[in-house]
Amino acid sequence: MKPQLARYLKTRGAQVERTLESLLRRRAEQPETIRKAMSYSLFAGGKRLRPVLAMAAAECCGSKASSALKTAAALEMIHTYSLIHDDLPAMDDDDLRRGKPTNHKVFGEAIAVLAGDGLLTYAFETAADNAAEEKLPAKSALDLVRVIAKGAGTQGMVGGQVADLEAENWPARCARRLGPALEYIHLHKTGALITAGIEAGAIVAQATPAQRKALRAYGRAVGLAFQITDDILDVVGDKKKLGKKGSDRQNHKLTYASLYGVSAARKKARALVAQAHKHLAIFGPQAAILRDLADYAIERDK
Amino acid sequence: MKPQLARYLKTRGAQVERTLESLLRRRAEQPETIRKAMSYSLFAGGKRLRPVLAMAAAECCGSKASSALKTAAALEMIHTYSLIHDDLPAMDDDDLRRGKPTNHKVFGEAIAVLAGDGLLTYAFETAADNAAEEKLPAKSALDLVRVIAKGAGTQGMVGGQVADLEAENWPARCARRLGPALEYIHLHKTGALITAGIEAGAIVAQATPAQRKALRAYGRAVGLAFQITDDILDVVGDKKKLGKKGSDRQNHKLTYASLYGVSAARKKARALVAQAHKHLAIFGPQAAILRDLADYAIERDK
Repeated sequence: MKPQLARYLKTRGAQVERTLESLLRRRAEQPETIRKAMSYSLFAGGKRLRPVLAMAAAECCGSKASSALKTAAALEMIHTYSLIHDDLPAMDDDDLRRGKPTNHKVFGEAIAVLAGDGLLTYAFETAADNAAEEKLPAKSALDLVRVIAKGAGTQGMVGGQVADLEAENWPARCARRLGPALEYIHLHKTGALITAGIEAGAIVAQATPAQRKALRAYGRAVGLAFQITDDILDVVGDKKKLGKKGSDRQNHKLTYASLYGVSAARKKARALVAQAHKHLAIFGPQAAILRDLADYAIERDK
Repeated sequence: MKPQLARYLKTRGAQVERTLESLLRRRAEQPETIRKAMSYSLFAGGKRLRPVLAMAAAECCGSKASSALKTAAALEMIHTYSLIHDDLPAMDDDDLRRGKPTNHKVFGEAIAVLAGDGLLTYAFETAADNAAEEKLPAKSALDLVRVIAKGAGTQGMVGGQVADLEAENWPARCARRLGPALEYIHLHKTGALITAGIEAGAIVAQATPAQRKALRAYGRAVGLAFQITDDILDVVGDKKKLGKKGSDRQNHKLTYASLYGVSAARKKARALVAQAHKHLAIFGPQAAILRDLADYAIERDK
């Protein structure tokens, strides 16, 4: 990782951390149990990739990173809720996440379901607060909410999770049939929220339509590159390093690496990063961090 | 029920139904399974109380009911998501809801969790669409999102569900200790979303701060009156008529009727309806339907 990116991730990550801590303080009429359960997963060592991308997008469009801090926090809340629900016994049934017991293992299934629900709901409140504090015009303020909702919902992340569940029931590993399904899953299960987050950062910065379009395209390419690289690392990397217990389901999971082989997956990821760079062409040096982040997507596979 | 209220519920209910049907049509990039699962519970015979209250509040503040239709639909989506998650084996473990198999019994637990997540997310998208179509000023548009999020979140409905789960573990039925907890549960688990919905209707109508405040207070009183009456009906009413399987948990549930007795519960509900009427005093004849709805809250107990 380039030193300038490492510094950026550190400072921006620390800002996100402080914002999340402040948002997760005690609030009136809120049971302490649910605050603890939400905090447990929110502060379980996430890389804060989505928040940092959103802040970098805002900066790329000429705003201060801090203007998008609450939107960045909202994205991390949505990402965290999706992990809590994904780990439930009815879903992936995981006992560990990043080396720590999963939310339902600590707080029980009922509270884990509600902690996810609470984080998702709080995310929309927080994004709306951001728009109000930044005095965004009505159209931008509502676009912010709608872009996040579309990225997180059944046309986005939730849709990807459904497709992922359904793919597990398919009988044969036929690349011709599974290829498009896998692309749908990757683009939606993880890509949609990453893309929405980048666009959300641009919206807070009141970007032009052309800038928003370019950043969406960048987000789509980078999100997919990250996912394919995760697939490769799952196959070739050290599972313990990723802090995940390889559950039965994960071990039989449809991935780029398992479907096309590691070499073809690497080629695809490299092509996506090249695409991502092209989409940033309309930006000047302000896009330096987004360029480094694109390179970092595949750099982890070494 | 007064004939004018019956007519109102019928026509407004039909409008809500058509709006929900149109919102639940196929959308691009959305797996058909999740659309079916969300529709199944959304069209399982709900009374559409929250949407109708929101529309009545908008009318009471001088707007057309139709201007608040999407917000009304959003409230029903949130209510439905909460029922789907509440019925899960990890929560109330109910097999039937309104006489029909619960969502997870038909679609499986994983899809039921995701159907709830999808509906909650879609609700925020839909409310934001409403604000955009009505060209609300930024402040009102964001208030709409924030009021709904607060009513649905950990300071509202989710908080009430958490408190409800925790109350089940308490050892003794001591009214002095359980009374405040029960009031918190009722005000939050069901009351908060009803109140938020009424305020949301007022926001779409661009109500004055005084009108919003009065309608919030009205909503709080009416929501609690509905809940206490539900408690009474649970004890004295015909359970089959309500279409619920009395699960073990429900049978041991903390309710106004079980804690204070049916007679004291009735007195409390009547007092709340009187309060609700007082809060409507600043409105003229435009609040007629809201007055009828307040009366209806306790009228069902006959």
